[in-house]
Amino acid sequence: MSSKLNVVPFVSVDHMMKLVLAIGVERFLLELAAFIEADLRRWSEFEKSVRLASHSHEGVIELMPTTDGAFYSFKYVNGHPENVRTGRQTVTAFGVLAEVGSGYPVLLSEMTILTALRTAATSALAASRLAPENAACMALIGNGSQAEFQALAFKALLGVRCLRLFDIDRSASHKCVRNLADLGFDLTVCASVEECLEGASLVTTITADKRKATILTDNLVGDGVHINAVGGDCPGKTELHPDILKRSDVFVEYAPQTRVEGECQQLPPDHPVTELWRVISGDAPGRTSARQVTIFDSVGFAIEDFSALRYARRLLQDLPFYEELDLLADPDDPRDLFGMIRRAGASAVTA
Amino acid sequence: MSSKLNVVPFVSVDHMMKLVLAIGVERFLLELAAFIEADLRRWSEFEKSVRLASHSHEGVIELMPTTDGAFYSFKYVNGHPENVRTGRQTVTAFGVLAEVGSGYPVLLSEMTILTALRTAATSALAASRLAPENAACMALIGNGSQAEFQALAFKALLGVRCLRLFDIDRSASHKCVRNLADLGFDLTVCASVEECLEGASLVTTITADKRKATILTDNLVGDGVHINAVGGDCPGKTELHPDILKRSDVFVEYAPQTRVEGECQQLPPDHPVTELWRVISGDAPGRTSARQVTIFDSVGFAIEDFSALRYARRLLQDLPFYEELDLLADPDDPRDLFGMIRRAGASAVTA
Repeated sequence: MSSKLNVVPFVSVDHMMKLVLAIGVERFLLELAAFIEADLRRWSEFEKSVRLASHSHEGVIELMPTTDGAFYSFKYVNGHPENVRTGRQTVTAFGVLAEVGSGYPVLLSEMTILTALRTAATSALAASRLAPENAACMALIGNGSQAEFQALAFKALLGVRCLRLFDIDRSASHKCVRNLADLGFDLTVCASVEECLEGASLVTTITADKRKATILTDNLVGDGVHINAVGGDCPGKTELHPDILKRSDVFVEYAPQTRVEGECQQLPPDHPVTELWRVISGDAPGRTSARQVTIFDSVGFAIEDFSALRYARRLLQDLPFYEELDLLADPDDPRDLFGMIRRAGASAVTA
Repeated sequence: MSSKLNVVPFVSVDHMMKLVLAIGVERFLLELAAFIEADLRRWSEFEKSVRLASHSHEGVIELMPTTDGAFYSFKYVNGHPENVRTGRQTVTAFGVLAEVGSGYPVLLSEMTILTALRTAATSALAASRLAPENAACMALIGNGSQAEFQALAFKALLGVRCLRLFDIDRSASHKCVRNLADLGFDLTVCASVEECLEGASLVTTITADKRKATILTDNLVGDGVHINAVGGDCPGKTELHPDILKRSDVFVEYAPQTRVEGECQQLPPDHPVTELWRVISGDAPGRTSARQVTIFDSVGFAIEDFSALRYARRLLQDLPFYEELDLLADPDDPRDLFGMIRRAGASAVTA
C-alpha cells in the first residue's frame, strides 16, 4: 500500500462487493470467523467498553471502539427501522482501523456489508460451540438485509443446508429464496413462526422492530434447540419472551453491553450469563447436554469489527480493491500546517 | 449536493485548503466563531458527554460525539507528541456529520486543518469575553502547528496585532514569523518565557508535551492578564503551575471533561469553574475587573467540532470543494443487501 503519509486506503461499497465476490461469500465468512475466533481467544489483550449510543425517536447512532494495544478500531453504525420506507438501509456502517503508536488511520472501510458478514460469522462461530449435535435444519425468522448472510455462515461453518424461512412480509422470504436458490440449500417458506420452527434445531431471529416484540414464546421452543437471537440489540428492542431466557443457558459477547441492549435486558442484572470468549478459549463449557436450550444473545461487539477490519486489510495485500483517500494533512515540515495552506494558495496562483 | 443514497460528500485535505483559501483564513475564523457562538447559546439542546479516550504510551486516540437532535457529529482525533520525529502530525483528525432522523452521514471531512481552525476560533471567542479591555499584545508560547491559527483568530476577533513568540525550538518561532510576516502583525521572537510575557496582556500557551510541564509559573503572571491555555488537554498533560489557577477565575468548555483533561486536573474536583456557554449566553459574567486574572482552560469540546462541520457543510453549498464517496450500500430493494452483491458479480461477468 501507499507510503504517502497523507493517504488512507479506503474500501468503498463497490470495492467491498468486489472483495467479497473475489474471495467468495462462504470462504469470506469462514476466514472472517477464524479472525474473530483468534481475537476472542486473546480477549484480555483488548480494551473493552460498552458502545457509545445516541438514541432518538427514529433510531440509534453508535460508536464502537476497541484496541489491542497495537491497533485501534471503531465503527460508526446506525439502526433506523423506518429507513426502509425511504429506500434506505436499516443499518449502515463504516469503520476505521488505526495504528496505536502514531494514531494514524491505516484503513477506512464501508461496513454495511462488512457488518452483515461479521454478524453472521460471529453467530455461526457461537453456534459451532452451542448447537446440538448434527443440527441440520435452521428456522430463519426475519428475512431482511442480513438473512442470507446468516444462512451462508451456518452453511459454511456448520454445514446447515435445510432452511425454513418466515417473515411477516412474505415478499422478504421470497427475496431470500431467489438469492439462495442456487447455493445448495433446501428452502421452505413458512406461513407462521410455528410452522417455521417445525423440525428446526437451530433458530435464528433477526427482525428489525425497534420495540419489545415477542417473536418467540416459551411454548414454541422445544428442548435441545439453539437460538441465535440477533435482532434485539438496543434498549427496548427484544425478540424473545423472557420465559425462554429463564429456562435456557444464555451466552453473550460482552456482558456489560448485552445486559443493557440484548434479550438479557429482560432478566435481573445478576442472572448468570457466559461470555462467548470463555467458551472459545476453553475456559467455560458450551453445550453440555442434548436437552439444554442454548441462546446466543447477540448484539454485536467492537472486537468483531476490529477482526473484520483486520481481515479486510489482510485481503487488500493481494486484492487491491481500494482507493487512496487524501485524509491526513502532511506538510513538508510537520509543524507547519499553516504554511502548507499558504503554499497551496501560492501554487494555485502560479499554476 | 448529490441525491444518490450511497454517496457521502468528502472534503479531503486538498479540498479543505482550497475552501479555506477561497474564503480567506481570517473570514473563515470569524464565521466559524459565529457558528460556535450560535451553538454554545443553545447549549441545553445538545447531548453532551466526555470524549471517549484510549490512552497508550505514545499518545491518545479519542472519539468526540455530540448531537442537537437534528444532526449528529463525531470527530476522530489523535494526540501523539512524538509523531513529529517521523514527519507526522502530533494531532490529526477527521469527522462526520450525520442526520439523526435516518442515521445517514451527510459529510465526511478531514479535520486536522479544521480542528486547528475551530480551536483558534473558540480561543478567540472566549477571549472576546474574558480579555482585559484594549488588549493589544499577545504572548504566544509554543509555535507549532496551531500557532498561526491562534494568532489570526485573535487578530480577526479582537484586533490583536502585536505578537511575542517563544518556543524551546527557536526554528518553530521563525517558521511562525515567515508565515505571518505579511499578514499585518508586529512580530517579536523572544529568547525566554519571561521575555515573551513582557507587555503582553494576553497569553496563549499551546505546547505539545505529553507530561506535566510548567510553562508558566505564578510569579511570571501579572494582574489583569487573560491566559488562553490550549496545550494541556489530557490527563497528565498540563502547562500552568497550579498556583496560577488558584488566583485566577477559570473558564472551561464542559466541566466534567476539563476537570479530567485540562489544567483543572491540578485543582480539587469542587474548585469553582465557569462553563463558557454561560458567559456567551449572558448567564454568567466574563471579566468583571481590570486586575482579575482569567484563564480559558481549553481542551476542545465536541460541540465545537459539530459547529465546524456544520459551517463546512454550509460553505460547500456555494463552493463545491468535495468529492462523492461511495460509502453507503444502496441496493435497489433496501432489504436486499445480499442481492446487490450477487448482481454486482453477475454484471462483472457479463461486462
